[in-house]
Amino acid sequence: MIIVMQRDADEASVAAVEAKIRAHGLDVHISRGVERTLIGAIGDERKLDPEMFDPMPGVEKSMHIVKPYRLVAREWHKADTIVVAGGVPIGGNTVQIIAGPCSVETDAQMNAAADGVKAGGARLMRGGAFKPRTSPYAFQGKGVDGLKLLKDAAGRHRLPVVTELMDVRMLDAFLEHGVDVIQIGTRNMQNFDLLKAVGQVATPVILKRGMSATIAEWLMAAEYIAAGGNHNIIFCERGIRSFETAYRNVLDVTAIPVLKRETHLPVIVDPSHAGGKAWMVPALSLAAVAAGADGLLVEIHPNPVEAWCDADQALTPREFGVLMERIGQVARAVGREI
Amino acid sequence: MIIVMQRDADEASVAAVEAKIRAHGLDVHISRGVERTLIGAIGDERKLDPEMFDPMPGVEKSMHIVKPYRLVAREWHKADTIVVAGGVPIGGNTVQIIAGPCSVETDAQMNAAADGVKAGGARLMRGGAFKPRTSPYAFQGKGVDGLKLLKDAAGRHRLPVVTELMDVRMLDAFLEHGVDVIQIGTRNMQNFDLLKAVGQVATPVILKRGMSATIAEWLMAAEYIAAGGNHNIIFCERGIRSFETAYRNVLDVTAIPVLKRETHLPVIVDPSHAGGKAWMVPALSLAAVAAGADGLLVEIHPNPVEAWCDADQALTPREFGVLMERIGQVARAVGREI
Amino acid sequence: MIIVMQRDADEASVAAVEAKIRAHGLDVHISRGVERTLIGAIGDERKLDPEMFDPMPGVEKSMHIVKPYRLVAREWHKADTIVVAGGVPIGGNTVQIIAGPCSVETDAQMNAAADGVKAGGARLMRGGAFKPRTSPYAFQGKGVDGLKLLKDAAGRHRLPVVTELMDVRMLDAFLEHGVDVIQIGTRNMQNFDLLKAVGQVATPVILKRGMSATIAEWLMAAEYIAAGGNHNIIFCERGIRSFETAYRNVLDVTAIPVLKRETHLPVIVDPSHAGGKAWMVPALSLAAVAAGADGLLVEIHPNPVEAWCDADQALTPREFGVLMERIGQVARAVGREI
Amino acid sequence: MIIVMQRDADEASVAAVEAKIRAHGLDVHISRGVERTLIGAIGDERKLDPEMFDPMPGVEKSMHIVKPYRLVAREWHKADTIVVAGGVPIGGNTVQIIAGPCSVETDAQMNAAADGVKAGGARLMRGGAFKPRTSPYAFQGKGVDGLKLLKDAAGRHRLPVVTELMDVRMLDAFLEHGVDVIQIGTRNMQNFDLLKAVGQVATPVILKRGMSATIAEWLMAAEYIAAGGNHNIIFCERGIRSFETAYRNVLDVTAIPVLKRETHLPVIVDPSHAGGKAWMVPALSLAAVAAGADGLLVEIHPNPVEAWCDADQALTPREFGVLMERIGQVARAVGREI
Repeated sequence: MIIVMQRDADEASVAAVEAKIRAHGLDVHISRGVERTLIGAIGDERKLDPEMFDPMPGVEKSMHIVKPYRLVAREWHKADTIVVAGGVPIGGNTVQIIAGPCSVETDAQMNAAADGVKAGGARLMRGGAFKPRTSPYAFQGKGVDGLKLLKDAAGRHRLPVVTELMDVRMLDAFLEHGVDVIQIGTRNMQNFDLLKAVGQVATPVILKRGMSATIAEWLMAAEYIAAGGNHNIIFCERGIRSFETAYRNVLDVTAIPVLKRETHLPVIVDPSHAGGKAWMVPALSLAAVAAGADGLLVEIHPNPVEAWCDADQALTPREFGVLMERIGQVARAVGREI
Repeated sequence: MIIVMQRDADEASVAAVEAKIRAHGLDVHISRGVERTLIGAIGDERKLDPEMFDPMPGVEKSMHIVKPYRLVAREWHKADTIVVAGGVPIGGNTVQIIAGPCSVETDAQMNAAADGVKAGGARLMRGGAFKPRTSPYAFQGKGVDGLKLLKDAAGRHRLPVVTELMDVRMLDAFLEHGVDVIQIGTRNMQNFDLLKAVGQVATPVILKRGMSATIAEWLMAAEYIAAGGNHNIIFCERGIRSFETAYRNVLDVTAIPVLKRETHLPVIVDPSHAGGKAWMVPALSLAAVAAGADGLLVEIHPNPVEAWCDADQALTPREFGVLMERIGQVARAVGREI
Repeated sequence: MIIVMQRDADEASVAAVEAKIRAHGLDVHISRGVERTLIGAIGDERKLDPEMFDPMPGVEKSMHIVKPYRLVAREWHKADTIVVAGGVPIGGNTVQIIAGPCSVETDAQMNAAADGVKAGGARLMRGGAFKPRTSPYAFQGKGVDGLKLLKDAAGRHRLPVVTELMDVRMLDAFLEHGVDVIQIGTRNMQNFDLLKAVGQVATPVILKRGMSATIAEWLMAAEYIAAGGNHNIIFCERGIRSFETAYRNVLDVTAIPVLKRETHLPVIVDPSHAGGKAWMVPALSLAAVAAGADGLLVEIHPNPVEAWCDADQALTPREFGVLMERIGQVARAVGREI
Repeated sequence: MIIVMQRDADEASVAAVEAKIRAHGLDVHISRGVERTLIGAIGDERKLDPEMFDPMPGVEKSMHIVKPYRLVAREWHKADTIVVAGGVPIGGNTVQIIAGPCSVETDAQMNAAADGVKAGGARLMRGGAFKPRTSPYAFQGKGVDGLKLLKDAAGRHRLPVVTELMDVRMLDAFLEHGVDVIQIGTRNMQNFDLLKAVGQVATPVILKRGMSATIAEWLMAAEYIAAGGNHNIIFCERGIRSFETAYRNVLDVTAIPVLKRETHLPVIVDPSHAGGKAWMVPALSLAAVAAGADGLLVEIHPNPVEAWCDADQALTPREFGVLMERIGQVARAVGREI
């Protein structure tokens, strides 16, 4: 950590900062420049925090030098981690496609969707049984019955399933019903009690980025899960909030290479929620794969116009099949496969 | 709801939209313009959603005309609601100041803080027992013991207490310990299961705005609480996320008059989290009161430099006393009191 | 245009709105719903503006139905426009790469850069002679001498040149020196007098997106140029401003398919300014091409570490050569070529 | 400047950074920590830039310690500067109100507006003769004739005038017509050639904040003007762009105390453009004054509904008179006057 003193800071202020650093067991290095004195803390700076120094007299600002994440950081774990979800590896050379409807509706809908997922060549199936809806009056999901419908439909094609956990009290039900991958949604990225809970189990977790979370906050949210013992974490970029109103979110493709540099864990992309319109999904899917994504989370529905939620962003199984062809071509162009 | 058809939409597309509206029990009104045909749905448009129409052939876009919130809306409840928290009215002519430390630390710290709250003239006390921290390695709060320390210290001055609930499983403990106002933090504004849970109790709820939540989303989050039966809701603006890096958040004062127009419920402001620096708190506090806020949530600490969290944003009891004088002057200038 | 009346608007208010619409020569269509009355203006709604109605008694809000841009809109010009810049077509099946240094420095630097541009297979050369710098104390560009150096170096390989115009008073110099493509930078996207000026000439214009411009504002900025008579416009997405601090801007790939749908004009991407770091350029370049970009604007420098500006985002000619191979592969995967 | 080396940076990399610093005439201070080596540059760090070091081998990041602005910085000029505009002091104990219509329309409109400005007690008059409009088809202002109308109407009450300069070629006309204060609009905050031009004259300049400009960029834009010799600069906060759609911009009141700390120059606020609706203007005006603004720029119009631009944000002279009373009360509550 570096503490930058104000131009007119006196010796007593410098001494007070020095004493505080030493009180936490770190060593001190003072550099007197022409305009500013800098105080460096030598040792494990994770014991210190800028807010410990910023309110002290004579301090202009202070800042960490070392990054605050450790278990998820590539700095300490150079090789790519492959997370195995229901037997399917995520994070290796194969770009994995996860497909399925926004929400679980009926047995027939789920079976038709599962057929489409399989026919298109995807290796995991998604479907929401618990839905985070902006309005309390909107359909809130089928609940536990939805978990069953999802598992049954996917099971016919031996597809592992991905579904969202919103409430920590439902975690046991997720485990009992054999959910293969637990999704933490954008609104819960910093629901720390939920992160701690999924950190206690071994099930892989897809951690979606908060709507306006920085990369650093996102990595720290993953660190919460990893600190509990569960290192099977997959990051999922799903678009960030911006001033633009022509589309729902801005897919942040830059996050892909930046995360791949900062963490050893896999990174996937949700092109469906990012744009919010089915016709944007192909361009965003191809962009994500070209930028280095390890997978995609795509919404498909046997009959999008009749979907109970997010009807305007789902592809038909037929459109999905066409898109899979194109994804395969781009994947191969960047040295990967699907 | 209005559905705007594409310029070249054919009659079959118009008919399909019309049929869908009628299938939901609403009436239809068609307006054929020079460049576009518009289809209006007449009736309770809350049964419809843009995503039901946007993917249909020939549809350019569709939009709600009526606002989706009802219980919290001033449109349906013209008079201001006064929420009574531990005997203290929030939302009337008196601007209520809630003060206290970021986190509950020790018995001595809480007693000194409570003395400062009382001496300054605030009528409620805040203090965090459960802390949402970006890092899993940071102090996470004293937990249930913290609730006791808070109640004891505040009780000496008969101050009702405000404290944050993060985990739905802790709600019973909050009720048992007599928490007077439950705070829902910015990261949990769309933790819908938590909102549903506090909607089932009668304790007043301070609902902080999500870091990048729109006014409409915020109102809908309150609607979740109200839909459960708890109408004792207080909105708290605490700064929104922006591109600016010179301060932590941007205090959105415009939200105050806009909310006062949209909802009958009280609106308070947290100037401490907004700016993130103690020296910004006075200017932001005065601005909030001048703009019409019904209260403030201010961090104070007997010894900010030694605070266990957010040390750089807490005022000393002495600074708080000076600020309270100034707040009183501005409150009187706008026809209110403290 | 639709005007939505307030729930309790009286007949006089409705009549006043109707009269105002008719006074502008449009027809009126009134739709009385259960909760709201809607008034539609039938005719050329470009004569009307929401701000004409919003302040009237009883009006809740009003909105345009038809988009405000016309010359640049695909709605009125279905086929893709190909802009020919110095003999090179932009907007057709070939993805055109424009490369060169951030700023023109010396004869030697420009010649080495031009060699790299040519060797890599790019067909146009960029270089800044006038530089928009945040600080008045930073290098401001070589000025007119820079135009000469750029033309000379590029001319040796018969490469058309692209360079930024900041000051309307320099337009004549640009024409005299044979600048092939005039770049309007992000800070000048709404410098309307500059847009009007380049609208009067025939030289192709690259119009960069404002740092926080919406798609609609960007299209309207292009409409300024087109309204003057110059339809040779190329949109360039270069990243938008967000809350994220891990990279300079967020490359908005969604803008590519959205623009391709809204306008018939070509769309290119600047991956160098978007990320701000050379190591991000490959991933962003490939993503842009996969998403449908018609070209790229890439910074290269013979010796990036010694570049006079933006040293950390330029590729070496060697890195550029490698990237061109990869761009070619992705272009072919999406049915195009370079 | 501090250069942070990567954890595994070798000695040759450290030596190269050291050599580069020394080559620019600065001294070097090396601090070897447990996890990182830090290199400090001792001397005038304005000669250095992070981009000079970031691309070098072994460098993780580098950062300035000293702020880049100097002439406008309070660090070097402790006392508040009072800018005198047409005889009226801005920046002292009196909060100065500047009022007038969005655009100059007719002689009658300007005279009625001037009467309202005077009657309300404002001491300067605003009015736009050149209007930056999103659409090329919208009213672009009366031009030079508008300058005359503005001067004539204001002159009847001896009110100095404020009007916006968009095009550097019109500066002479502004001087000839005796414009008292030149306004640089939000879209031109980084139109550097325009800033340089107004830096060459002595007329006071109101520099509006760019729609998404950081405080640091804004200060640097002012530094451009000051570097040319014109130190009569007034900052004007007018709302920043955000994700919120319920209002046009977010008035950033935090910018007021932050600017007052960073610069010795006056800071005013435009509450009319910030919210975009007349009914929001009072709350925002009072908030701005309470937060420490040195003045306000308020839109009034004799007949807002008929205004040629921004009709929904102008106050009537009568509403303005009422607001002035309230502004006076808040100003006195914070120890100032109007």
